[in-house]
Amino acid sequence: MVTTVRTGRIPGEHPTAGASFRVRCRLMNVPGTLAGLLAQVGNLGSDVRSVELIETRYDYVLRDVTFLAYSPEHASSVVAAMRTAPNVDIISVTDLTLEVHAGGKIAVALKSAVENGDDLARVYTPGVGRVAKLIAADQGRAWDLTSKGNAVAIVTDGSAVLGLGSLGPLAALPVMEGKAILFRKMAGIDAWPLCLDVHTIPEIVDAVCAVAPSFGAINLEDIAAPACFEVERLLSERLGIPVFHDDQHGTAIVVLSALYNAMKLTGQTLGALRVVICGVGAAGSACARLLVRAGVEDIIGVDREGIIQSPLKVGGVEVNLNPRAVVGGLAEAMEDADVLIGTSAGGLVSREMVASMRAPRIVFALANPDPEIHPSEIGDLAQIVATGRSDYPNQINNGLVFPGLFRGLLDCRARRVSVAVMLAVAQALSEVVPSDSLATDYLMPSLLDPLVPVAIAQAVRKVLSTEKH
Amino acid sequence: MVTTVRTGRIPGEHPTAGASFRVRCRLMNVPGTLAGLLAQVGNLGSDVRSVELIETRYDYVLRDVTFLAYSPEHASSVVAAMRTAPNVDIISVTDLTLEVHAGGKIAVALKSAVENGDDLARVYTPGVGRVAKLIAADQGRAWDLTSKGNAVAIVTDGSAVLGLGSLGPLAALPVMEGKAILFRKMAGIDAWPLCLDVHTIPEIVDAVCAVAPSFGAINLEDIAAPACFEVERLLSERLGIPVFHDDQHGTAIVVLSALYNAMKLTGQTLGALRVVICGVGAAGSACARLLVRAGVEDIIGVDREGIIQSPLKVGGVEVNLNPRAVVGGLAEAMEDADVLIGTSAGGLVSREMVASMRAPRIVFALANPDPEIHPSEIGDLAQIVATGRSDYPNQINNGLVFPGLFRGLLDCRARRVSVAVMLAVAQALSEVVPSDSLATDYLMPSLLDPLVPVAIAQAVRKVLSTEKH
Repeated sequence: MVTTVRTGRIPGEHPTAGASFRVRCRLMNVPGTLAGLLAQVGNLGSDVRSVELIETRYDYVLRDVTFLAYSPEHASSVVAAMRTAPNVDIISVTDLTLEVHAGGKIAVALKSAVENGDDLARVYTPGVGRVAKLIAADQGRAWDLTSKGNAVAIVTDGSAVLGLGSLGPLAALPVMEGKAILFRKMAGIDAWPLCLDVHTIPEIVDAVCAVAPSFGAINLEDIAAPACFEVERLLSERLGIPVFHDDQHGTAIVVLSALYNAMKLTGQTLGALRVVICGVGAAGSACARLLVRAGVEDIIGVDREGIIQSPLKVGGVEVNLNPRAVVGGLAEAMEDADVLIGTSAGGLVSREMVASMRAPRIVFALANPDPEIHPSEIGDLAQIVATGRSDYPNQINNGLVFPGLFRGLLDCRARRVSVAVMLAVAQALSEVVPSDSLATDYLMPSLLDPLVPVAIAQAVRKVLSTEKH
Repeated sequence: MVTTVRTGRIPGEHPTAGASFRVRCRLMNVPGTLAGLLAQVGNLGSDVRSVELIETRYDYVLRDVTFLAYSPEHASSVVAAMRTAPNVDIISVTDLTLEVHAGGKIAVALKSAVENGDDLARVYTPGVGRVAKLIAADQGRAWDLTSKGNAVAIVTDGSAVLGLGSLGPLAALPVMEGKAILFRKMAGIDAWPLCLDVHTIPEIVDAVCAVAPSFGAINLEDIAAPACFEVERLLSERLGIPVFHDDQHGTAIVVLSALYNAMKLTGQTLGALRVVICGVGAAGSACARLLVRAGVEDIIGVDREGIIQSPLKVGGVEVNLNPRAVVGGLAEAMEDADVLIGTSAGGLVSREMVASMRAPRIVFALANPDPEIHPSEIGDLAQIVATGRSDYPNQINNGLVFPGLFRGLLDCRARRVSVAVMLAVAQALSEVVPSDSLATDYLMPSLLDPLVPVAIAQAVRKVLSTEKH
């Protein structure tokens, strides 16, 4: 193993494990050959992740060099450069992202061994017939005698896949599998992707209601606004299990959580903040709604047409924004603001706009993959800068929320997700970062921090046990 | 471990692993205590499956006694009898069928380790975004870059759960999980149950079409006739992936396969057979259809009103039955018949009816759990008797077919299941039993025989490679 080598960076570009490649090379046994090869990798700004010895012969060795590039195109340039290294032959190049996707990323597994006729008679006929009859007589028993109680449907119509737009249900499938991985890995939940080939509100609602008996909760993902609001509202009305639109509420919860921690660092309070939300689609409007419930009093929403002047209506709830009746566009909104929350598109915010904010300036530029403003542009102006990306400090990602949230909901057999639950989750998530570790570049825990889902699920269970009493 | 003890049988009753119980007992260290306890179990006709030593103390031992009963009620009597054994205390009683169902029988698993940020960047954002874009540009890539190519939806509306009737979608869920276990265990397929809360033909069809992008094939289960025919036909028309109604075609294939092997034993040929099908619902009518395609020329179908006189219409296909224009009911149909295939209900066939058949007499009494006639009643009359039960010889169960069939279909990215495929599968399944092992009480391989799915999948791939050329 060789540790990461950092040379030859292109400003604004970052090597990412999303574009990691493994190159099998034959190196002649000539001193300096490996160094010459690795120099080619590093010269173009990519990160050497590992060098492994595969085979040793008298006159040559086989090595796998794994590196991180900016993009597959950049990786091609790196490989081309590697081919110019003296005494080296390139045997094969493997795209590690495609390799891990080959054949899909999730599988169905048995929870107990089935090795003989006795086992089969218990899990299948005739034993299962008795279980079926028990459930037919008492439907509630499906929660403890089947997979329902631990199963979540990850539902999308592929109309807003990541920040990439309407790519359709098939293209959304690998993303939903990625979410299923987080559900399993972080919270032991069995989530299966259901990518829908229907796109109108009633069709989506009908399809989800039809399959609902198999699941204990529904996680809506990557459904475009404004359809997502009505889909969520109708499903919540019709189904007796929690329905959670992650892009809305997952984002709102993690933003509020990050804001709680920012307050600890700046000493400000939510009630005194002036907050600007740039982009009031699914995520932005849910943020506005939750921040108001958390005690933020001064929020200005900005969309393509400028500052929103009429109350924001989301899923039947009306939220009054812009209490100071500011007029204009994003620049006017940001003047003297304390916090900018960007849930819009890359590059919309200028350094001048950030400079016009009130110090210490908190900027959450969450547009993916390109933030509203690049952190490096405002590092000297803003005390706290967060993005949605994993390759900068302070990643604000809803993947922090949904595993633990659903764990808590399933544990309680909850029928809905209340605002009280969302507020408690935001609080619990913020508290996972110990106060002595909290820093302007360490606002949120890692997506793989095992304490996160535990803390969140506990918070959910606590609220729900109170709500029931 | 103590091997099975067989005493005190009630005629017609059979201990089944579907009603297996584990009883934790405290036995005083007095000679004869264990023998006295086991005598109580055996006296009521249950099978002692195992005796395990849990803990040894100076004056007593703890043992787990596992036994098979006829039913949970019978098990209660057995436990009551165990309580009367001298020097024994019963500590606890566990229903092993309910124990294995607790929390569900299937789970979602990760196909590769996700342990750090690099792993996450490949399976989730940002890496997954590139995969999504590849699929958006070329939809066919979903087959190799997602779970779709190995995923089957097990779809039911719970309208005909096993032989138990319309128990609804929740009660069907443990049964569908049992099928998912066979899919995974026997053929490495990721099948997830979708129990539908809709029951009209268009609603079922719309729901399945909506979720279809996530799956490579659809397995319909336990949907009542006649809706099942139209559901299957419409789905096959609308979807570009195989749609297979297991209760129809799975049964038909396994019946034909058993008939092939019966022919080897009796020396008869399909074309010369007189076949009676008792019960022409989903399974019976599919059997009629496939047997005709396999070369059977003389089939009489019998339903509640007697011998069917008009052609049988199944899924848009018309099958002419009753070539000799026999009039009457089941008794008239069975006179001089060679084969009875029962897909109806328990006890409909009398010993006299079987006696009126032509020797050597082949009886497939497949009604579950109670066969049309009990094998013990006709052991002296019929050379070959098969049932749908695992606790008699010659189990004819569609669980033999679907894992290997879907393995072959997915391997070929098939778009439909043709009759040629079904015939080839029946043939391949029959050939899994070596000719020197084939016997009147060994007609079909075991449900857990690993050679079965391998042989079936190979047969499917062979037919499909021919169909494509």
